[in-house]
Amino acid sequence: MRDALGATLGDIGLTAVSPQRQPPPERSKLEPLQMLVEADMRRVNQLIVARLDSPISLIPELAGHLVAAGGKRVRPMLTLIAAQLCGYCGQRHIRLAAAVEFIHTATLLHDDVVDQSELRRGLATANAIWGNKPSVLVGDFLFARAFQLMVEDGSLEVLGILATASAVIAEGEVAQLMTANDAETTEATYLRVVSAKTATLFAAAAQIGGVVAERSPADAESLRDYGENLGIAFQLIDDVLDYSAREVVLGKSLGDDFRDGKITLPVVLAFARGSAEERRFWQRTLEQVEQRDGDFADAIELLQRHGALADSLTRAAHYGAAARRALESFPPSEPKQALLDLVDFCVERAY
Amino acid sequence: MRDALGATLGDIGLTAVSPQRQPPPERSKLEPLQMLVEADMRRVNQLIVARLDSPISLIPELAGHLVAAGGKRVRPMLTLIAAQLCGYCGQRHIRLAAAVEFIHTATLLHDDVVDQSELRRGLATANAIWGNKPSVLVGDFLFARAFQLMVEDGSLEVLGILATASAVIAEGEVAQLMTANDAETTEATYLRVVSAKTATLFAAAAQIGGVVAERSPADAESLRDYGENLGIAFQLIDDVLDYSAREVVLGKSLGDDFRDGKITLPVVLAFARGSAEERRFWQRTLEQVEQRDGDFADAIELLQRHGALADSLTRAAHYGAAARRALESFPPSEPKQALLDLVDFCVERAY
Repeated sequence: MRDALGATLGDIGLTAVSPQRQPPPERSKLEPLQMLVEADMRRVNQLIVARLDSPISLIPELAGHLVAAGGKRVRPMLTLIAAQLCGYCGQRHIRLAAAVEFIHTATLLHDDVVDQSELRRGLATANAIWGNKPSVLVGDFLFARAFQLMVEDGSLEVLGILATASAVIAEGEVAQLMTANDAETTEATYLRVVSAKTATLFAAAAQIGGVVAERSPADAESLRDYGENLGIAFQLIDDVLDYSAREVVLGKSLGDDFRDGKITLPVVLAFARGSAEERRFWQRTLEQVEQRDGDFADAIELLQRHGALADSLTRAAHYGAAARRALESFPPSEPKQALLDLVDFCVERAY
Repeated sequence: MRDALGATLGDIGLTAVSPQRQPPPERSKLEPLQMLVEADMRRVNQLIVARLDSPISLIPELAGHLVAAGGKRVRPMLTLIAAQLCGYCGQRHIRLAAAVEFIHTATLLHDDVVDQSELRRGLATANAIWGNKPSVLVGDFLFARAFQLMVEDGSLEVLGILATASAVIAEGEVAQLMTANDAETTEATYLRVVSAKTATLFAAAAQIGGVVAERSPADAESLRDYGENLGIAFQLIDDVLDYSAREVVLGKSLGDDFRDGKITLPVVLAFARGSAEERRFWQRTLEQVEQRDGDFADAIELLQRHGALADSLTRAAHYGAAARRALESFPPSEPKQALLDLVDFCVERAY
């Protein structure tokens, strides 16, 4: 396993400089899932557009910018497919999937808030276009709307799951801020942050799919475990892709994390394994964020020298396997296969 | 009425330059209310401190900064006294009052987010000390905690009231942003913003006091009306105090709104009534926020010349009277008298 991953890493190094490569065949792994949720997702999208409406025109305008950008919608998709896996035939999952996407969009808007010192990058985020404050307030609006949708649904259990998830996400974001630009962050600390700020919403999204279907708490917990482990795998792969992706696959620019001085798992591993001189390199580039031409290429070289990308992929594969195991108690079905394929897609998109 | 207010305005002009005056005797108007809610409020404060706790130390640290600053706690006090007015004998109002204060604190943190262009003022807000991003994220945490508290309480009705209030507040804040630095804002637009961003939480806080007591919807609505009107009066008086307060009473600095280029009711009225030259003054000082020594004194002079402070007080008194009327259906009681006195205190603190 380790060797296979190591061998593939050579590829990754190559692909970073050959963006003209074909899209990977694994992409088709998502298709069965997308087909299963297609009709539901159309209704989720309609509801999202309807509930973004406000007499305050800046709200649909700004939020629409994000929604139209059309992220992968992985989180609401998890709610929909989990409900299908549990044989749910009602309509509640539509509204709750929209609530999940609203919470996710709110956290994106708030995550993009910048302080003066961070304005070095000219991103076309909502914040860069409209400024911090509108983004914060529209995020608040979306967050409140999410809770209104849940109140309309009427399940205190779901409200509790997503209120707690929201608190944990905020804690994770603050924890990330406190470890930001600290190259000495440990792997354990880093994983705690990822679990809180990314995996928690994946977990909650999948769990509530089981809750609306009124399945046993054990089944809902299994779905939660699936989401939690998928979320961690997803984030770790994202970390690796920042140093290795074909941009066409990723949709974000290569090296964003590096230019932001973000400490991600590959860096944590390379820093721990590096020489004193290498550590000074990471401290200069990521702690002080003093970067020069060629630094990014040097960073990739260091990550590869210490097997940091390969080992990050190994960790991701480990969480992917845990996600797959979490579904063991469910009998074979199309939705189950789609959830298993989603794990493969997430992990394999790095190749 | 108008004359009486006009006469008092002379006083206000004077008091602006004589901060050594005695605190006003009306202060005692708050005492019966404070005594009635004292025991409850102590428990609310304990709960707030307990639920601010987080392994992420920056959260209690930053949020504690605001909570320790010890605002007036008017909003949770409304929940407590409204429950008492309705003869409520249980414990639910404690948790819900804490939720109300968490929502209020979250909106304060988010309202203080600044964009680069606004960094001209050196306030000791949480944002100035810790930066925008921690303030935003800790605000999110408090908001989520508020919903967790409501879920523990278990009333979907209360959850609906506060989720909707949160959405309306966010809309009001965005609307305010869109009219910010626009001296041509109309009185109607301004009042809509005040109603949404300030009065909505007063209204919800009072209403849920009636809801926990399981009073008729009509009684809960009356309490909501009371809170709504009190909230508008409260904000209008705040606007006037920025141009006239004894600082010892207000707890904020004289002229903060002016220096921020905030368009408040006195300015709206003076602008509408002003000459072309006066309008250019308001546009320079509040739209372009180009201010020189002596501008603030000139602003006060213009406001007084057009009766803008007096008329703002008249408007506030109008809303205060509506708040009093909203309680007519409740028989006399100590809590009712305390709520009536609170209106007087709010309106009279300008004198």
